[in-house]
Amino acid sequence: MTKHRIIYDTDPGIDDAIALVFLARHPEIELVGITSVFGNADIDTTTRNALYLASRFAPHVPVARGAAAPLKCPAPEPISHIHGNDALGDIERIGHVDKPEDGRAAHRFMIDAVRAHPGEITLLAVGPMTNLALALQEAPDIAALVREVVVMGGAFGINGTLGNATPAAEANMHADPDAADIVFGAPWNVSIVGLDVTHETVMTTAFLASLRDSAGDAGRFVWDVSRFYERFHASDGISRGIYAHDYSAAAFVVARALYTTRSGPVRVLTDGIAAGLTIQKPASMRTDTPAPDWDTRPACDACIGVDADAVLDLFARTLAR
Amino acid sequence: MTKHRIIYDTDPGIDDAIALVFLARHPEIELVGITSVFGNADIDTTTRNALYLASRFAPHVPVARGAAAPLKCPAPEPISHIHGNDALGDIERIGHVDKPEDGRAAHRFMIDAVRAHPGEITLLAVGPMTNLALALQEAPDIAALVREVVVMGGAFGINGTLGNATPAAEANMHADPDAADIVFGAPWNVSIVGLDVTHETVMTTAFLASLRDSAGDAGRFVWDVSRFYERFHASDGISRGIYAHDYSAAAFVVARALYTTRSGPVRVLTDGIAAGLTIQKPASMRTDTPAPDWDTRPACDACIGVDADAVLDLFARTLAR
Repeated sequence: MTKHRIIYDTDPGIDDAIALVFLARHPEIELVGITSVFGNADIDTTTRNALYLASRFAPHVPVARGAAAPLKCPAPEPISHIHGNDALGDIERIGHVDKPEDGRAAHRFMIDAVRAHPGEITLLAVGPMTNLALALQEAPDIAALVREVVVMGGAFGINGTLGNATPAAEANMHADPDAADIVFGAPWNVSIVGLDVTHETVMTTAFLASLRDSAGDAGRFVWDVSRFYERFHASDGISRGIYAHDYSAAAFVVARALYTTRSGPVRVLTDGIAAGLTIQKPASMRTDTPAPDWDTRPACDACIGVDADAVLDLFARTLAR
Repeated sequence: MTKHRIIYDTDPGIDDAIALVFLARHPEIELVGITSVFGNADIDTTTRNALYLASRFAPHVPVARGAAAPLKCPAPEPISHIHGNDALGDIERIGHVDKPEDGRAAHRFMIDAVRAHPGEITLLAVGPMTNLALALQEAPDIAALVREVVVMGGAFGINGTLGNATPAAEANMHADPDAADIVFGAPWNVSIVGLDVTHETVMTTAFLASLRDSAGDAGRFVWDVSRFYERFHASDGISRGIYAHDYSAAAFVVARALYTTRSGPVRVLTDGIAAGLTIQKPASMRTDTPAPDWDTRPACDACIGVDADAVLDLFARTLAR
């Protein structure tokens, strides 16, 4: 079995933490590194959380601190009403964190790992895409050396929504649209797991309670960390459950067949009232409809459908191992 | 029975012509006027076509010539590959057109009619929204006097597409995004019938042939005029049929219950690579997600679903009367 060697670029964040537990436990995944980025909270907070999560669930995996701000636009407002003041649901933290940071910046860590393992590294990016854009800018050669890039972000309107941060933009795209547009335009294989499928993949209270009662320490943690997030979702009309945003992208790496994808170049609007909006030119669109802002760019795979029950079952089975 | 008193703002255009036949024959509709606008062809062509269609199917209905160009942006490229060189599928025209134009400009015609019949006029706009925007700019009072505005245009991504003119924009929105953003921001009741439902409502070759054989002169005309359009659609993968774009908006006026709508303010992007993109903030979106570019504007009803079989049956029954 060839493992998926993953660098997990993350802004933990409750759903980031849930995804990390899955990544740490899945037998076909080798976590090569965890890189932090601003997003759900400031970079100090997300890096602290990444170190905590690594200490508890992936103690031998290095953690490298990433970007504190977007490439060009102002940093987003704090969203402590979603993830808590500490961005991990304000739970009591078990254990002592003495894990040091990797000395390198996140994007430098990526470059080194990709060059050291050509064709092997999957970049799984579930926060703003700033670190990936910085890596590309500093070392364009890595595009050809990465196995694939899997992104949680964006939305294509399939299930009726284009955004959650604004009516037009999903939060990760909105936080650094310039970086996202760079990432989607680079000559590597990119798959995009957006709100079109993450809003379809709901971990219900009953599902989470079952994990708590049957999946040991990991299950208990997923339950604990999701209490704050679930209260936010309850106020959003997603009664009794949470969206599995970041986990959906993690699952995609190992269970791509559970998703329906659409091929075509993707642009991210970088300014104006719709900054952060993702727009794909589907490969099925008429070839006599010229779209020069898309046509020169490589195709990405955007998720437009998901077998949500199977994706959730994969999570439960992986934690129960 | 209170009739729907409609001003049909149109850029004929094959599907415009098909919709006009329906409007002229439906017993609950009184056509108050037909106003032309550039779009599917230049204003001379669309006005000539409007006069021809009125002469043949609605001889007592006045025709007023409208805008030759968008408010700000350049006029769109000709799309004779879709509608033919004469924008009516290059069919042989039956009968003699000696109908004179109404002396007024289209937007002036609208203003006069709306003020003369307060609360009674429906503006059914199936081309670029330029005439409506000009009317609003010259006489903002009409917004409170119009019964409702029904627009064919835009797309919200529900069925996987945001546009047909570009990856981001439906043709009517793309042709004059500034006008559309004005129309959707005015304090009147606007319903938007976009690609989300028109792409679901396909008049198949068999359906059109049935009209040809059973619906008299009107049915024969719909068959004839749709031959060119159908060849275009065949090249688009819509084998053996045509999208009923403009008819879908006409049907909405008299059969709203056949459509599912979503309420919320709608913006139209007016520049950049996604100019013409329609973006709604659904009323269901969290109230703690401030969106100042939307929140100050009135709600529109955007169609997100349709009973296409019933909409097509309505057409057949109306022509067979």
